[in-house]
Amino acid sequence: MTIDYGLLAPVRAGTAVARLVSDDAWVGAMLEVEIALARVQARLGIIPAEVPDCVAVAVRTGRFDGRVLAEEARGAANPVVALVQWLQRTVAQVDSASADYVHWGATSQDIFDTATMLIAARALSVIVDDLNETIAALVDSARAHRNTPAVARTLAMHAVPTTFGAKLAVWAQGVVDARDRVCQVRTYGLPVALSGAAGTFASYVECARVSGGELATAPAAVIHDRLNTELAVELGLTSGVMPWHTVRTPIADLAGSLAMVTGALGRFAIDVITLSRTEIRELAEPGAVGRGESSAMPQKRNPVLATMIRTAALQMPGLVSTLFTTMLAEDERSAGLWHAEWQPLRECLALAGGSACTARELAGGLIIDSQHVASNLALGRGQVASERLVIRLTPLLGRVRTKKLLQSASFEANSTGQALAEVLSENPIIRSHLDADAIAELLCPENYLGIAPDLAARVRVRPACACSAGSSGSEM
Amino acid sequence: MTIDYGLLAPVRAGTAVARLVSDDAWVGAMLEVEIALARVQARLGIIPAEVPDCVAVAVRTGRFDGRVLAEEARGAANPVVALVQWLQRTVAQVDSASADYVHWGATSQDIFDTATMLIAARALSVIVDDLNETIAALVDSARAHRNTPAVARTLAMHAVPTTFGAKLAVWAQGVVDARDRVCQVRTYGLPVALSGAAGTFASYVECARVSGGELATAPAAVIHDRLNTELAVELGLTSGVMPWHTVRTPIADLAGSLAMVTGALGRFAIDVITLSRTEIRELAEPGAVGRGESSAMPQKRNPVLATMIRTAALQMPGLVSTLFTTMLAEDERSAGLWHAEWQPLRECLALAGGSACTARELAGGLIIDSQHVASNLALGRGQVASERLVIRLTPLLGRVRTKKLLQSASFEANSTGQALAEVLSENPIIRSHLDADAIAELLCPENYLGIAPDLAARVRVRPACACSAGSSGSEM
Amino acid sequence: MTIDYGLLAPVRAGTAVARLVSDDAWVGAMLEVEIALARVQARLGIIPAEVPDCVAVAVRTGRFDGRVLAEEARGAANPVVALVQWLQRTVAQVDSASADYVHWGATSQDIFDTATMLIAARALSVIVDDLNETIAALVDSARAHRNTPAVARTLAMHAVPTTFGAKLAVWAQGVVDARDRVCQVRTYGLPVALSGAAGTFASYVECARVSGGELATAPAAVIHDRLNTELAVELGLTSGVMPWHTVRTPIADLAGSLAMVTGALGRFAIDVITLSRTEIRELAEPGAVGRGESSAMPQKRNPVLATMIRTAALQMPGLVSTLFTTMLAEDERSAGLWHAEWQPLRECLALAGGSACTARELAGGLIIDSQHVASNLALGRGQVASERLVIRLTPLLGRVRTKKLLQSASFEANSTGQALAEVLSENPIIRSHLDADAIAELLCPENYLGIAPDLAARVRVRPACACSAGSSGSEM
Amino acid sequence: MTIDYGLLAPVRAGTAVARLVSDDAWVGAMLEVEIALARVQARLGIIPAEVPDCVAVAVRTGRFDGRVLAEEARGAANPVVALVQWLQRTVAQVDSASADYVHWGATSQDIFDTATMLIAARALSVIVDDLNETIAALVDSARAHRNTPAVARTLAMHAVPTTFGAKLAVWAQGVVDARDRVCQVRTYGLPVALSGAAGTFASYVECARVSGGELATAPAAVIHDRLNTELAVELGLTSGVMPWHTVRTPIADLAGSLAMVTGALGRFAIDVITLSRTEIRELAEPGAVGRGESSAMPQKRNPVLATMIRTAALQMPGLVSTLFTTMLAEDERSAGLWHAEWQPLRECLALAGGSACTARELAGGLIIDSQHVASNLALGRGQVASERLVIRLTPLLGRVRTKKLLQSASFEANSTGQALAEVLSENPIIRSHLDADAIAELLCPENYLGIAPDLAARVRVRPACACSAGSSGSEM
Repeated sequence: MTIDYGLLAPVRAGTAVARLVSDDAWVGAMLEVEIALARVQARLGIIPAEVPDCVAVAVRTGRFDGRVLAEEARGAANPVVALVQWLQRTVAQVDSASADYVHWGATSQDIFDTATMLIAARALSVIVDDLNETIAALVDSARAHRNTPAVARTLAMHAVPTTFGAKLAVWAQGVVDARDRVCQVRTYGLPVALSGAAGTFASYVECARVSGGELATAPAAVIHDRLNTELAVELGLTSGVMPWHTVRTPIADLAGSLAMVTGALGRFAIDVITLSRTEIRELAEPGAVGRGESSAMPQKRNPVLATMIRTAALQMPGLVSTLFTTMLAEDERSAGLWHAEWQPLRECLALAGGSACTARELAGGLIIDSQHVASNLALGRGQVASERLVIRLTPLLGRVRTKKLLQSASFEANSTGQALAEVLSENPIIRSHLDADAIAELLCPENYLGIAPDLAARVRVRPACACSAGSSGSEM
Repeated sequence: MTIDYGLLAPVRAGTAVARLVSDDAWVGAMLEVEIALARVQARLGIIPAEVPDCVAVAVRTGRFDGRVLAEEARGAANPVVALVQWLQRTVAQVDSASADYVHWGATSQDIFDTATMLIAARALSVIVDDLNETIAALVDSARAHRNTPAVARTLAMHAVPTTFGAKLAVWAQGVVDARDRVCQVRTYGLPVALSGAAGTFASYVECARVSGGELATAPAAVIHDRLNTELAVELGLTSGVMPWHTVRTPIADLAGSLAMVTGALGRFAIDVITLSRTEIRELAEPGAVGRGESSAMPQKRNPVLATMIRTAALQMPGLVSTLFTTMLAEDERSAGLWHAEWQPLRECLALAGGSACTARELAGGLIIDSQHVASNLALGRGQVASERLVIRLTPLLGRVRTKKLLQSASFEANSTGQALAEVLSENPIIRSHLDADAIAELLCPENYLGIAPDLAARVRVRPACACSAGSSGSEM
Repeated sequence: MTIDYGLLAPVRAGTAVARLVSDDAWVGAMLEVEIALARVQARLGIIPAEVPDCVAVAVRTGRFDGRVLAEEARGAANPVVALVQWLQRTVAQVDSASADYVHWGATSQDIFDTATMLIAARALSVIVDDLNETIAALVDSARAHRNTPAVARTLAMHAVPTTFGAKLAVWAQGVVDARDRVCQVRTYGLPVALSGAAGTFASYVECARVSGGELATAPAAVIHDRLNTELAVELGLTSGVMPWHTVRTPIADLAGSLAMVTGALGRFAIDVITLSRTEIRELAEPGAVGRGESSAMPQKRNPVLATMIRTAALQMPGLVSTLFTTMLAEDERSAGLWHAEWQPLRECLALAGGSACTARELAGGLIIDSQHVASNLALGRGQVASERLVIRLTPLLGRVRTKKLLQSASFEANSTGQALAEVLSENPIIRSHLDADAIAELLCPENYLGIAPDLAARVRVRPACACSAGSSGSEM
Repeated sequence: MTIDYGLLAPVRAGTAVARLVSDDAWVGAMLEVEIALARVQARLGIIPAEVPDCVAVAVRTGRFDGRVLAEEARGAANPVVALVQWLQRTVAQVDSASADYVHWGATSQDIFDTATMLIAARALSVIVDDLNETIAALVDSARAHRNTPAVARTLAMHAVPTTFGAKLAVWAQGVVDARDRVCQVRTYGLPVALSGAAGTFASYVECARVSGGELATAPAAVIHDRLNTELAVELGLTSGVMPWHTVRTPIADLAGSLAMVTGALGRFAIDVITLSRTEIRELAEPGAVGRGESSAMPQKRNPVLATMIRTAALQMPGLVSTLFTTMLAEDERSAGLWHAEWQPLRECLALAGGSACTARELAGGLIIDSQHVASNLALGRGQVASERLVIRLTPLLGRVRTKKLLQSASFEANSTGQALAEVLSENPIIRSHLDADAIAELLCPENYLGIAPDLAARVRVRPACACSAGSSGSEM
């Protein structure tokens, strides 16, 4: 019975990463690991040379019902035991002698953890691609709007002027940070896990010993390093020197990096939602047939992409907290902490993937409404740059007097509806220092932008490493 | 594409509640709500009398592809819009006039939230049944072992004597608390949600006005209460007087009650795991063919039921934290906080359901190894009741002297391997107050059980209310 | 050394509940429990009659350095052991014989858990008061604005008309739900915890046995119930029949109820922040000298009360997730799960207290800007009620045609800047069914309010029970 | 009023990091930042040369009441505004002209965020020291016990042989991973934050412009980079090119690294607790006067250090989840998400610090009970290495037959109490392949250790970078 095909999680429904982390993908990855292990063991003379092909044939031709497996997994509290039994039976139909060497020396956790890393590697590559595209699109827009004056808001209030490009650059910067963390994890943090029942690797050593092959008399450590290194090469993963059955830093670090992704994209989305508000309207989402429509209210066009991205950001922290909690794995394999990782980790990957895919679409199609950007900036009739006047006047009047003077001018402007420049121009104290033109110049938002126009160029679009799925390309 | 059929969550794979909360079940529940709404509106003269049947026929005969719907849901960030479009098209094939009255006056959230409550109601009923069975089984065992002396442990160390029945009763008590909370939510906390686009109910009122029916001129409040009450009766839910589109206390409270379930059962499971340890062996899980076997280690039999129950307890708190976070729903409907509830809430229901179902099996088949219970109690050679001697001697020797004397006796017993009674009997100060028989009697664990034998009878097996799915029965 | 006097948590700095849950308050509560226990034991003839007074004198006159105690607590991983040693020494200076009967039969967890409940009871009473005041103030405003038309927003977009009073009533409703949950916990959910070292109560029984008093020969269960009941009366708490050292449902339920508080208030706060936005300005926070000022920007007035309330809502879910996780307490007392509860639970109480206190101030002083409420509603030039027209036209034109027609009218109105009514009046199809006056009437927001004007009266201001600190009063 | 001096958090009470992150330390750090900013601005000719000294004098001589400040912070929802007002008043008493240049161009968040990084840097240095010592001690023990055979446990059951040194090495490996993550954050991840009110840096530029100093006509970007770089050097932090007021990746990444610390140490602690169990007793905590004593049970010595370490690990995930949630900071400064970071982040630092300090003590004094290590290994009478026999026999008998044969032998051994070797020696099938000596050799745990003896040497004791507080030293 299917629990989940995406109905309750539109942010990831039908996305590439959702496919890569599905139950079927997990079954597939575990079988890939079994094949790769057989290949490595055959190559090193630990098992007969024909075994890997027999396993591969069995995997290719066998009919496997994942739903049945899922229920059988209750017998062992993990799906590997039942999967291996199926695989052994199926290989036996191809070549009965080979069946004995399926999963040879292996333990459930070796297969499952390595499969998890394989899945994570593929998902992260897609995610990095989507993040790169998101960054590129945001930075493109940021450059186009590097000099577009806009209002900056703090604690929901108009604060000082900025540029619309600076907003876009700041959104991009968060995504850059997240992309770099994910790249780091993708490149260094996804190890294979051949360690045997309790992290001693003794079973694999014993398999080598009984084989009479080239490694039959090698020290255990040599056998360990050869098998792990070769398996890592086979699967495109890294190889560690220590068992990690109960050292779950790779899982926690992976989860943490995914939370960076949904957090950075969520931060972008939350601003898209705010700036889409009917009263603000500085931004609109890219249109598509039927997107964002209300069934009942014909005038509406909802910011649904940002809404979906936000859902991922909201769900992630709780999931990651579980994956930090499950670091406390006891003994040489935990009764439950290992098993509790699987579903939250998959959901983390799927949410990050869905979020990145959705953000790419959003960033690529943002519609900036320059007219509302300008009219919102003008709302305060010059007050938005009053901070600048504080700085100009303080050396002349002292801080306390300056503040009092400007607060009362601001109050008067608000009450009367005058522009702040007018009010100030009528003030004799200020007029003794600044004439009306100077005041007007000082309060002009365009003249008080600081480094806002520089920010777009400061975002490091290009990733430090090359860990994407390859299609990305769109560099500037 | 299917994300999840249970492979990564053995605790819920194939269980009854997993079925009740699947994506297909959600689609089904939304359609049930549409039918029920049509029935209520037809009965009140708001829509033509034949509409409900047409809708029911369409639902029964239409072919619906939930996977397609899940992807289409990305257009509106929720699946209701696409589902309603499908339903309108399908009803139109049955009776084109009726199609206009599908989802009449309704908004997506009305349908989705009510469907969620319907699903929750069904899941909670099954959960309550399983909790009742779990309680009954634990209390049965507790009564059987009410006088079996056992060691109580605090901070992992032997502390004082208790009975094995007291352990069982304490596990049961947690489940009783959880069951009572769930019953309360099931009985009072699951409201229908007919509120219209923004909680004003104006659309339903307008539908009544244009209908010319009995409610056409009724006050809005009357129409609201009639529709909500009738829908609640139709679906077996409760009816509130206020809209709850952004008042998410029902969701948070439901989630909190489910965390009680997995927490209480997890607490039971963690002790089963501990007491199953090779060095402790006071308990074993019920056997079943192939259950708990290791693929590589023939001597093993793992406590897999408790392991699975523990996974649910570990995953729940993070999910619930999301559902407390999503209480902060802004405006009259949130852009994201509502949508972020769905998947975590479903997972909470499924985990609680899987946990309860697994616990029922575990509690019903616990194998208590009286021999190891006894030998563990005897490990300390009498020291386990030394607290009692502290209480006896303090009035005679004073607290400070008593403590010093018993600590050094304990140290001597540990060093020499003597029983504590022997060491004490050789101590002249103690002998001046207590003879050897008295000491032996005082240190006898069976004589220092307090209320442990009473606890089994104190657990309130019978639930306060009748909110189970009905099959339960097994009351004592 | 002081970690925290509130600098990093303005929401609770200096509030009444922060005081009630401080480290010093905890020390005080533990000492109160020791005194109360002595009183009960003396009354039942278990300890000499003069002991309670001696303990009370020692507590009153002794000089206690909580900071030293905090560091000494590292010796036992809990502060009770060191506190009791101090108390015994101090009582010994008053009356050496009495010192032996301090903490007589008790275990650290009995004292700590009971003290926690005592503190929780006091904090909850204050919180209920503040929630009652918050509800009363919101409902007052809601009644005053029950007929003030306002725009309802969904997914950040203008949706349909509502009233400002309905907004206030919905905020109040969440607070009502939270208040009712807290009242329930306050009234039924805070038990005393006299259970002895491992929940068997054997030590207290032994104390009774050696006393020769009235209970010396009573059954253990009778002694248990007498002591617990009398202690509960003494401290204003409830009394359970089962030990709860490792049945942590009371803690988890308390935490859950506090998350309801911060969630409901956070939901209110998030709308205050949104409605305070410079572009929206329907609301402002109550002013106070210096409040909400910016150091640099003289024109600003930040919504700081809502900001602080939001911080509590954001911090709570993570803390509560810990308190659901710590339900998994193993053995008869956990090595760590009990101890991990304390700081998060205190923080939950403080945050809920700070949030409630801040919300009371906010709700009591909300400034509603009717002019902006009206001008925002008018922004869409009639489109906000277009849903109503859908309902009117659908029976006439069919759903599909109606939708298409209104969407294109809406598009035209947006493009040309015309009012929707004008556009529609020029449409011959619509004109064949509705004249211009009818269209104008139908699109008038005031005529499409549904039950919005009724909501204020539907909020249950009065609490079901009387568990406040007493000062509340302000009922309507 | 003091909330917290450590009473409810023994794991951090009185520790070095608790001191470094106290409210007073935060006030101190904010004042340090103000002084450093003045120094940098004076050096660059932006403010008069005498200002920094005046500020420093004021800080040194002024009397500052942090408790009052904490309450005043409610006026602005942050403590910086009130602190700056106090500082300006105090500097004015030293030199009234200088007072105007206090906090010149700065915004609250600049000061607070930079102070937070300063505090984090100091705390992380201490934490790295303690982690290095913990690693060194664990690896020392691991080397000493590299060849001590011990039982490995999976799902709470005896699994296969390992060495006690391998257990220690695995614990160390987790700490190494955590240490390396913290070092990375300490070295690259703690930036200063001079960005002005809304991240445009315009105010600082304006200050430079009005100064007439060397930077008066420099481009804004040059001024930004000079000030930030110089401030970073001044404070020992890094300097970014982008504002991070709403790009909270540094905070989230810091929090994630701290969760690694408590997770890795918690994983160590959980095994210490298990191995300390009365029935297992392979380990004991280092003794100290009064440590781990029970007030009532003289025979007890509780594993209190591990208990405390576990409390930190349990509390951290919830706190970190909040710090991932607060990444969603809206606008150019959030109304609440920034403010909600402070208390959880401080608690994260304090818990990680307390955990590391406690772990150092624990690791440095672990008492390994070789006798119980050996007797536990012997419990299964040879069954613990039966996996090895599976591997030996499978090529001879086939997998299915081997498994069946060994499971029934294991069952017989359990029923009769015989050693597995005996049972097998009596089996004719096995005897046809292996003689009694061969069976005995194969089942001997010492001969089936795999790479367990190699693991101690594989732990990378030395950190990759030098970011400790300096005292560490104890390198091997």
